[in-house]
Amino acid sequence: MKLVIGNKNYSSWSLRPWLLLREAGIAFEEIPVRLFVPGFDAEIRQYSPAGKVPVLIDGDVRVWDSLAISEYVAERFPEKQLWPADVAARAHARAVCAEMHAGFQHVRNQLPMNVTAMLPGMGWNTSVQRDVDRIATIWSELRAQHADKGPFLFGTFTVTDAFYAPVVARFATYGIHLPEEAKTYADFILSLPSMQEWVAGAREERDFLTDDEPYRTGPDRADAIVL
Amino acid sequence: MKLVIGNKNYSSWSLRPWLLLREAGIAFEEIPVRLFVPGFDAEIRQYSPAGKVPVLIDGDVRVWDSLAISEYVAERFPEKQLWPADVAARAHARAVCAEMHAGFQHVRNQLPMNVTAMLPGMGWNTSVQRDVDRIATIWSELRAQHADKGPFLFGTFTVTDAFYAPVVARFATYGIHLPEEAKTYADFILSLPSMQEWVAGAREERDFLTDDEPYRTGPDRADAIVL
Repeated sequence: MKLVIGNKNYSSWSLRPWLLLREAGIAFEEIPVRLFVPGFDAEIRQYSPAGKVPVLIDGDVRVWDSLAISEYVAERFPEKQLWPADVAARAHARAVCAEMHAGFQHVRNQLPMNVTAMLPGMGWNTSVQRDVDRIATIWSELRAQHADKGPFLFGTFTVTDAFYAPVVARFATYGIHLPEEAKTYADFILSLPSMQEWVAGAREERDFLTDDEPYRTGPDRADAIVL
Repeated sequence: MKLVIGNKNYSSWSLRPWLLLREAGIAFEEIPVRLFVPGFDAEIRQYSPAGKVPVLIDGDVRVWDSLAISEYVAERFPEKQLWPADVAARAHARAVCAEMHAGFQHVRNQLPMNVTAMLPGMGWNTSVQRDVDRIATIWSELRAQHADKGPFLFGTFTVTDAFYAPVVARFATYGIHLPEEAKTYADFILSLPSMQEWVAGAREERDFLTDDEPYRTGPDRADAIVL
């Protein structure tokens, strides 16, 4: 199984299935593709007609999009129980994943994932805060319901945790204040060895978007997220 | 089973699960909610914490988001075969649904669904055309692969057809030119009795967005999509 991913520093969509496979303990080969460089479009189109990362390659099967990949992996490895077993909980898990997949435009536009940067206060506005409030509510309510089963949103690890992991990274970068329950969950996700591995990978990258990040003074910053 | 939907004229997200249930022959009660009117937010939050249509209510289970609803319905009624049976085809179906769910921003922003209006040329730009080209390619390639099994994207009706139905309506409203294969598919979807029923419902509505539609001279137009 191979997973085509973009830059670990920036590609929130790539982090989702990458974390899913790592947390599920499913072996895969990583195919990194550099975003935002000449030739990216031609390179990614070798793997996916949609022209976007991530792409999962499993023999003859090629699946693109983080959610479609997650459904595929969950079906392919039923023993990993990557969706909650209970029907109502599974529906709830898919609903909040879908909400993340197509929504939270303000967080997505204003707080782009930038794992190795520390930019507290940047990008924030009241629309961002409404998205943050909704996300914090989702986390807190799920944690309250499933705390007895484990520290993840539905107790044990599911696709939902993978889907919200990039948001955890965004909130850390931009210094978003969270209510206690939500912060406990975010800190737990940041502490996962798989997240630490992703962040370490991001710290090794040296591709920066000078147009987007004129404030970036070097390839990395000493005060970037250190786990 | 109950489905909370928005205005049939405007709510592309509502059309997806509505058409899915109709085409699958699954009985449901429709709960219409008027979008864009004072009190909408309070009304929809009775049904969903995400504050958006559509919402499916099935006993104690409440599922929001068109994609999560579709997965739920496909699982609940396996005999309807709402995803392709073949593993690779099913992965492909989910990938193109996910692409529609989170992508095609230009079509979505520039060509808002407006079932009863006929606005050829409005909203078009070259970014819209790139989205149109990709959608037409998806349709044409799937039709070429599965034509022997029936007239839908994967031969028989699947979630994928429900997901692209709102785009079919948008292309009709804005007079988008399509290659022959894609146009054949679009015309076929428009001709479905379920689509005709949705359009007839939209024609009965009298809620117009005067801010968005200053050009609208009356509650409906004689030249609106007539099937």
